[in-house]
Amino acid sequence: EAAGYGEVIPPLLERAEVFETPGALRAVDHSGHLLGLRADFTAQVARIAATRLSNVSPLKLYYRGPVVREGAGEAELRERLQAGCELVGAPEVDADAEIVSLAAQSLRALGIPADQARVSIGAVGWFAAIVEQAQLPARLVRTLTEAIDRKDAPRLTQLCERELLGHEARDALLLLTRPPATSADAAQLLDRARSLSQAPAARAALDRLAALVDAARARGFAESLELDLGEVRGLGYYTGLVFNLYAAGAPRAVGGGGRYDQLLGRFGDSRPAVGFSLDLDALVPLAKPEEPC
Amino acid sequence: EAAGYGEVIPPLLERAEVFETPGALRAVDHSGHLLGLRADFTAQVARIAATRLSNVSPLKLYYRGPVVREGAGEAELRERLQAGCELVGAPEVDADAEIVSLAAQSLRALGIPADQARVSIGAVGWFAAIVEQAQLPARLVRTLTEAIDRKDAPRLTQLCERELLGHEARDALLLLTRPPATSADAAQLLDRARSLSQAPAARAALDRLAALVDAARARGFAESLELDLGEVRGLGYYTGLVFNLYAAGAPRAVGGGGRYDQLLGRFGDSRPAVGFSLDLDALVPLAKPEEPC
Repeated sequence: EAAGYGEVIPPLLERAEVFETPGALRAVDHSGHLLGLRADFTAQVARIAATRLSNVSPLKLYYRGPVVREGAGEAELRERLQAGCELVGAPEVDADAEIVSLAAQSLRALGIPADQARVSIGAVGWFAAIVEQAQLPARLVRTLTEAIDRKDAPRLTQLCERELLGHEARDALLLLTRPPATSADAAQLLDRARSLSQAPAARAALDRLAALVDAARARGFAESLELDLGEVRGLGYYTGLVFNLYAAGAPRAVGGGGRYDQLLGRFGDSRPAVGFSLDLDALVPLAKPEEPC
Repeated sequence: EAAGYGEVIPPLLERAEVFETPGALRAVDHSGHLLGLRADFTAQVARIAATRLSNVSPLKLYYRGPVVREGAGEAELRERLQAGCELVGAPEVDADAEIVSLAAQSLRALGIPADQARVSIGAVGWFAAIVEQAQLPARLVRTLTEAIDRKDAPRLTQLCERELLGHEARDALLLLTRPPATSADAAQLLDRARSLSQAPAARAALDRLAALVDAARARGFAESLELDLGEVRGLGYYTGLVFNLYAAGAPRAVGGGGRYDQLLGRFGDSRPAVGFSLDLDALVPLAKPEEPC
């Protein structure tokens, strides 16, 4: 709210087609409508922004509440409490910086000191350009993504050999298994990446990341930033920046976000957008409230 | 929060037996556990207070979020956004007054002026004592309740004649179809009620309501209060005070609450409790926010 974001309260149940998230629960109501139980706030906020608030730009919204998905493989329902912000109608890199900065500030506000928190930024464009240039099949992309997620360089090398990939593609992919670079070392990592792919989409993604690091420096939060070109996961709708938030003591990311310039298009609005969400269930055990209740 | 209430965020899904609310949705998860989708916050807060916060008394909690029930007869899912407060471990009439006062203040905080809002108080005990004294069957009680809800005195008279009820029971029941009394006229209505039933439970309910009107006067919010002995609806767990909130322009009650001294007992805690909730879907169209977003 202090940053000018207004609360939006999306419904818990809405038309099932809003949720393309894997594991979204569906229910048929008695009049035959297929409903989805909220599995993802971002898709809901995109729907609301596109259909109800198309006249407000830039549009700054925040939300808080539960999402429910079926656990992958575990055959159980997983309920998570989330909170997040979405910034709609702002294509510029400073909007990316505002969202990443708000995410970092949120961890600070929860009592997690700057030296215990990391914001790891990447971009889907660079990996996508390599995939496109080398014309890798979808099956292989999934296997590669898993190896990249685990930063498993030997496995990645093995896959590249098995699939007879050229050394340009292999070297470009191996860069994704590198440890994250601090913001001070970001330029070096980006230069190395530039030397490995001439594709315009790859270049554009790297230039945008360099600009984001500069914007973070101008906003004074570059210290908590790290650059990891291997941050290639995330929901299917991300089109540019992707990032994850890590906190000391939490085994997995405690939040994340990215840019999704095509998602509002599903609801008839061409505006770009960028946002983040926090996993409050993961953060509560780490948070140091000002006053215990 | 200003009144010292701390936020509680109950899960959206929990063991189905917590929800005895009519129309609660149930789902079997894949490991065979029967889960309920939140149909009622009060039962959840009672469960949490009894099992996790039994060492804090008085315990003051508030909540906000959606509840989902199957619409009665309409064969559709009804999602409503609620907010409310629960005060646990405080048996005294001043706790009732605190809750009713908070409910009235909440409407004020939403921009609804005092002269556009009414808090209509009653008590389940008086009607229950009449029912008990005249030994009325459950089937008849349901029919009577509907006529009382509509303040339909001719129908009530007709029912009393058909069921051959004595004139004491009839006169006591007809009092429930009277228009609400202002707090200034409350004493007169209570005196009339006292003359119609000598049952100790009925007397106790009336004395408690008289004390609540006095407490409301001391707290300075008696003007927005009205006494309606016909406020006999409400969820099954109310044991004393019941009240509804009305606002000009809303066709139905915009909130309500009451005392539920037995509900925590279901979860092994003998503490009494009192609380209220607001129907935010009904209130949003009436609310006048300080700053439009």
